[in-house]
Amino acid sequence: MPVNSDIMHALRRVIDPEIGRNLVDLNMIHDLQIGAGGRVGFTIALTVPTCPLRDQMAGDARAAVGALDGVTGVDIKFRPMNEAERKAVFSLSHLRPGLPQLKQFNQVQQVIAVMSGKGGVGKSLVTAALAVGLRRQGQRVGILDADVTGPSIPRLFGLASGGLRASEQGMLPAATKKGIKVVSANLLLKEEDTPIVWRGPMIAGAIKQFWTDALWGRLDTLLVDLPPGTSDAAIAVIQNLPLKGVILVTTPQELAAMVVRKAVYMLRDLKVPILGVIENMSYFRCPETNHQHEIFGPSHAEEIAAAAGTTVWAHLRINPELAALCDAGRVEELDLPELQALSERLVASV
Amino acid sequence: MPVNSDIMHALRRVIDPEIGRNLVDLNMIHDLQIGAGGRVGFTIALTVPTCPLRDQMAGDARAAVGALDGVTGVDIKFRPMNEAERKAVFSLSHLRPGLPQLKQFNQVQQVIAVMSGKGGVGKSLVTAALAVGLRRQGQRVGILDADVTGPSIPRLFGLASGGLRASEQGMLPAATKKGIKVVSANLLLKEEDTPIVWRGPMIAGAIKQFWTDALWGRLDTLLVDLPPGTSDAAIAVIQNLPLKGVILVTTPQELAAMVVRKAVYMLRDLKVPILGVIENMSYFRCPETNHQHEIFGPSHAEEIAAAAGTTVWAHLRINPELAALCDAGRVEELDLPELQALSERLVASV
Repeated sequence: MPVNSDIMHALRRVIDPEIGRNLVDLNMIHDLQIGAGGRVGFTIALTVPTCPLRDQMAGDARAAVGALDGVTGVDIKFRPMNEAERKAVFSLSHLRPGLPQLKQFNQVQQVIAVMSGKGGVGKSLVTAALAVGLRRQGQRVGILDADVTGPSIPRLFGLASGGLRASEQGMLPAATKKGIKVVSANLLLKEEDTPIVWRGPMIAGAIKQFWTDALWGRLDTLLVDLPPGTSDAAIAVIQNLPLKGVILVTTPQELAAMVVRKAVYMLRDLKVPILGVIENMSYFRCPETNHQHEIFGPSHAEEIAAAAGTTVWAHLRINPELAALCDAGRVEELDLPELQALSERLVASV
Repeated sequence: MPVNSDIMHALRRVIDPEIGRNLVDLNMIHDLQIGAGGRVGFTIALTVPTCPLRDQMAGDARAAVGALDGVTGVDIKFRPMNEAERKAVFSLSHLRPGLPQLKQFNQVQQVIAVMSGKGGVGKSLVTAALAVGLRRQGQRVGILDADVTGPSIPRLFGLASGGLRASEQGMLPAATKKGIKVVSANLLLKEEDTPIVWRGPMIAGAIKQFWTDALWGRLDTLLVDLPPGTSDAAIAVIQNLPLKGVILVTTPQELAAMVVRKAVYMLRDLKVPILGVIENMSYFRCPETNHQHEIFGPSHAEEIAAAAGTTVWAHLRINPELAALCDAGRVEELDLPELQALSERLVASV
């Protein structure tokens, strides 16, 4: 029959994959009970209620405790930490000198930006589709929404305003249903349509903070959704984030192509690799006649890709069902082979 | 039979409507000839070769000279000023102390901004359509393109890069075929797709200069095409230009509506009147079935108008022919009652 200290000893081997420390030191184990028949129960208190990695932690904890002699079963409950508990976790480094800052545990394998130069071409949709696709492939994914004055990412994923928590240690990203971590200016607001009237230096500062002060934890891919233009946001991302490359989004109109070429030349001058070009709104397929209408004109994607020294990954059609899913915050339910293919293309290209 | 001094005396009464001074003082009259039968010929040298007001000047000059005793006919030719002549015009104020700066002749009756908050909704198209409509109503119209990093206006009107001239006195706006004056960052570039990688303060500075240092001359309406966002460009326009009001452009997607509402609340906080809401890309009419497809979802324009305390001016359909006209730089040829109606609505609302 195991005793409490055996259980706690076993649980010291289970690491919070986000924070990089064991559950016992993080004061996450509560209400430990050992039943007469050897059945063990405890509650894991989570720093973030929707912690996307809770299943992984629970699995690890179950395995560690279940391996002990005399344990016949493991029952795990969850609850969110209260403010005091969370504060304690994030002030650990102050209480114990030498313990590094939580954000020092950030390990982001690669950062990919989605850019256009032009507005309204569907950058956020492409960013979201890539994130969903990568997550389905098993990656740990984050999205840094660098469109500070016109952020779309929280709405696409149905994340409520105010979902970003700040502590002395940094910002805790919000998590989507499928466990994609999101940092966005709109998550800092009480109401999603409150304007953020900031000048360039403030915007650049916010983006830098989103990168350095968010507790991203361990990510395979961080996607950055850039706003239109080649001003402060784009400059801040290129200068401060270790970009592996940029995916360009365009639409067929030559007017859009002209502005997208500005982004191409900016990236070329700054020696940022362009991984691929995605054309959105390429055509509309009439549901009645099945005829494809090029309602924004013929494609210029190949010319842009040639100027960028890369290839066209997709010509995406205008899809009213997809627009509706986005408006409803259910982008994670999308099930379109052409969108899933984008994330596979990304994995193959880096 | 008139003599040279009679002709020159008459021409001193003809004012360059742009600069506000008479043609003789501006050294614009050359090659004066008086034929035996009383036929008078001369050349008017223009500061800008495409000067939209040349017909007005020619008419005034013909009337002034033709009224002289003994004049049986007036033949007027035009040529552009050479660089030295143009410099002399613009340095007149230095040569003659007390002569005011040319830009002091700027007389802009009203300034109206076209804004959205969201990118890619068709702000530039709406701006262009309003300008074309007002011009057809006989107004003197200018467009200040405040989208410094993604300017679309020159492309819509087929204005070549490099069309903006600078002098010690200020910038000479480019003029469209129909005489709309345009100032845009893209007119300063040699190639239209050269990126302008500027931080916010530079962008704000450029917009201020476009307003204060351009030789707009006399305008009935100056339209300002704003970029997406509620950052430097929007702040600069609201703080530095005497805005009579703002026209908001949106598209049906709720995602767009959310960002447009940010612009509404910004304008409300800053006490800038919102004149009306124009919804673009409301639906696509299949040319085969004539069925209207709401491809970006149902309209949210009425909600936005309600939040803005104004009305919806139009639900514009997606029009591939119009997109093609815009890409070809022939927006002035557009002949759509729904677009002409917008300018009439504007005139009625201010």
